[in-house]
Amino acid sequence: MELRPPRGFRDVPPELAILRKDVIARIESVYRRYGFDPIETPTVESWEVMAGKYGEEAEGKLIWRFKDPWSGREYALRYDLTVPLARFYAGHQDLPLPFKRYQIAPVWRHDEPQRGRYREFYQADADIVGSPYPEADAEIINVLTDALDSVSQDLKYTVLVNDRRILAGIFEQELSLSDPLRVYRSIDKLDKVGREGVRAELERELGAEAASRVMEVIDLRGPLEDTVKEVERRHDNQKVKEGAEHLLQVAGLLKKAGSVVFDMSLVRGLDYYTGPIVEVVLESPKIGSVAGGGRYDNLIGLFTRRPVPATGASIGVDRLIDAGVESGLFKLNVKTYTQVAVVNVRPETFRYAWRVAELMRSWGFSVRVDLSRLGQDEQRRRALRLGVPVMAFVGPQEESTGSVTLYSQARGQRVTVKLEEARRVLEDMLSGR
Amino acid sequence: MELRPPRGFRDVPPELAILRKDVIARIESVYRRYGFDPIETPTVESWEVMAGKYGEEAEGKLIWRFKDPWSGREYALRYDLTVPLARFYAGHQDLPLPFKRYQIAPVWRHDEPQRGRYREFYQADADIVGSPYPEADAEIINVLTDALDSVSQDLKYTVLVNDRRILAGIFEQELSLSDPLRVYRSIDKLDKVGREGVRAELERELGAEAASRVMEVIDLRGPLEDTVKEVERRHDNQKVKEGAEHLLQVAGLLKKAGSVVFDMSLVRGLDYYTGPIVEVVLESPKIGSVAGGGRYDNLIGLFTRRPVPATGASIGVDRLIDAGVESGLFKLNVKTYTQVAVVNVRPETFRYAWRVAELMRSWGFSVRVDLSRLGQDEQRRRALRLGVPVMAFVGPQEESTGSVTLYSQARGQRVTVKLEEARRVLEDMLSGR
Repeated sequence: MELRPPRGFRDVPPELAILRKDVIARIESVYRRYGFDPIETPTVESWEVMAGKYGEEAEGKLIWRFKDPWSGREYALRYDLTVPLARFYAGHQDLPLPFKRYQIAPVWRHDEPQRGRYREFYQADADIVGSPYPEADAEIINVLTDALDSVSQDLKYTVLVNDRRILAGIFEQELSLSDPLRVYRSIDKLDKVGREGVRAELERELGAEAASRVMEVIDLRGPLEDTVKEVERRHDNQKVKEGAEHLLQVAGLLKKAGSVVFDMSLVRGLDYYTGPIVEVVLESPKIGSVAGGGRYDNLIGLFTRRPVPATGASIGVDRLIDAGVESGLFKLNVKTYTQVAVVNVRPETFRYAWRVAELMRSWGFSVRVDLSRLGQDEQRRRALRLGVPVMAFVGPQEESTGSVTLYSQARGQRVTVKLEEARRVLEDMLSGR
Repeated sequence: MELRPPRGFRDVPPELAILRKDVIARIESVYRRYGFDPIETPTVESWEVMAGKYGEEAEGKLIWRFKDPWSGREYALRYDLTVPLARFYAGHQDLPLPFKRYQIAPVWRHDEPQRGRYREFYQADADIVGSPYPEADAEIINVLTDALDSVSQDLKYTVLVNDRRILAGIFEQELSLSDPLRVYRSIDKLDKVGREGVRAELERELGAEAASRVMEVIDLRGPLEDTVKEVERRHDNQKVKEGAEHLLQVAGLLKKAGSVVFDMSLVRGLDYYTGPIVEVVLESPKIGSVAGGGRYDNLIGLFTRRPVPATGASIGVDRLIDAGVESGLFKLNVKTYTQVAVVNVRPETFRYAWRVAELMRSWGFSVRVDLSRLGQDEQRRRALRLGVPVMAFVGPQEESTGSVTLYSQARGQRVTVKLEEARRVLEDMLSGR
């Protein structure tokens, strides 16, 4: 009998589920603070909804597609939360614009599993539908950096920015490349295969001279405003100008302009981007991108048959957690939400123990009580293994006096109090946790 | 281009997603209060993990199984959260017992879609692994009723209880039925096909006489303790006695014993139950079961190869929400979490508006600001449509005096205050919401 999850999938034990819930709650709270509201789309989409949206690598290899054996219909597990949003919006065009939505949910990739790369992982997306303006792109970057800061003040990251119009102006108009998306996909492998790997691939596709010119172009990187102005000086064409002017307006509205860098080698792998694109790269540990996004003014139109501008970004929740755990920023040391373990000293006081547990729950505490008729030593041992911060001992003496003996290991404090005082003592023992 | 989700799947717009998040948060808070901790298992399970666990109807028809077109492997979308828990526990046998876990997540059924029946829906499960005692079954019923009460004090429901040992004692030993699971599956259709439908099906399977005796047996229903004692009197056999004694101990530990009824026609459709079984039926609206569960002492052993007792239950979150919305208990009237819409009166005060929005966010409020360069009337109109409770007007006058004009429609209150006073006024305008 197979005990493991399918290859590339994970079981998440309590200590990791508790951490993930905490990280997600922090991100969600920031998304809400910016006025984003939740929607949910199904796990399963019709294949035709996904087809033609992501590019050939995704569609030929990475999407979990399957045929329903009963109906013969073609389905797929969602690959991201953006295309489903586009489909959703097309079916809800009465919603007032801008429509600001968040969705935090798993997506599936039929990738080769490896350390830190799963076939099922959580994305936390925030998108703005309906505004073509730099204000919307700036808000997306601000909500991203606020969300990351809310997860931990100690995350060190750089926000990389580019604009697909700048790329198009240079690669299509100046270098006359006929299939820029293909060039972007090669450049997008910089992290994986390095500079020389990208150059080799470009040489095979474009020849040595064009490859050299591409490599020279993508070398440009520096502080957002200054570098965008430099790009405008170097490349005098309309598309570059459009992208650059848009980015300069974005730059003026950023909360953490100091962490934002223009990087010409940032292209993003997906086909649907049309304007500013963004990626957040962790500086330590150096695990690469933990968030990314951009403007996709043509995607929703594929569903609505009229243009609807949109911009958004996604945080790779599980990658962020892996990075945080690896670097020691996040701890996997909370194994339970339980605050109090009621330890029943004698079988005959079980009902009193049960009543004490109920009372403490009614005060809002998270409480366990013995359900397995264990001896008190074993009850204590298991509560300790779980890391429950407070134990509440009850035996004949406590029952006869309507009291409970509270013990906090962390404080080395042990005190017998009347039930009506237990609440205050518990609050005190648990404060600062 | 298909705009709808696949048949039987749903898009969840903000007003429903907000309600669902609220309902789930309430249930989750009660689960935590009882000391249950979260785990997560993958959406996709290997087919062999699911096979042989649920019974023939589920496995032959209702499980979303599929073959990976690349690897040829057989997978399935999870059908419930119980079998995955059993597999999970088998892979984590070092966890201290009892292992109390909750999981709130979607499951998939390849059912014929109809009103209130979806192919993807949320279950909220709480289970206790490791205790064979009635205390654990009682705690499961208590956590269920507390969770339902926390969702709404006005839910009217009845908790139905039975025990698989009582059923086995009567049907196998007294009526000598060779395939009791099949009889249970017929009885389980009572809600769908009615008494006469069940009788007809039983007659086809067992003949008229045995069918009549089954119908007579399952008619018994009444207050838990009294009726269980009645069952013990009527059926003198060891299995019935075991089940009855167990249920009497459960009964003594229930918080809401008054809402709990023994019902001999409660059988539960799944094969894996071995002891007490439970179902919560809404009284109004009469939509049937919203929660259910029971003891399954042999399921985990299929994975661990040694017996591990377990008991648990599941709330059908989406069915509960549908029932609450239909009966008017829940309202779909909150379309946004946004508390304040900053309305920018003139284009030239946009930066000031942006700054005011940022300041209010830093105070913890959920704030939107114009991202679409709309006129102030249109900004107001859209905020009203969304139901944002407070508007914050900023124009040249506000900017020059470092102030903001706050307007609460609900209170008919409009006041211009300095920025440093805005926090207090906002808290006041939003209090009680």
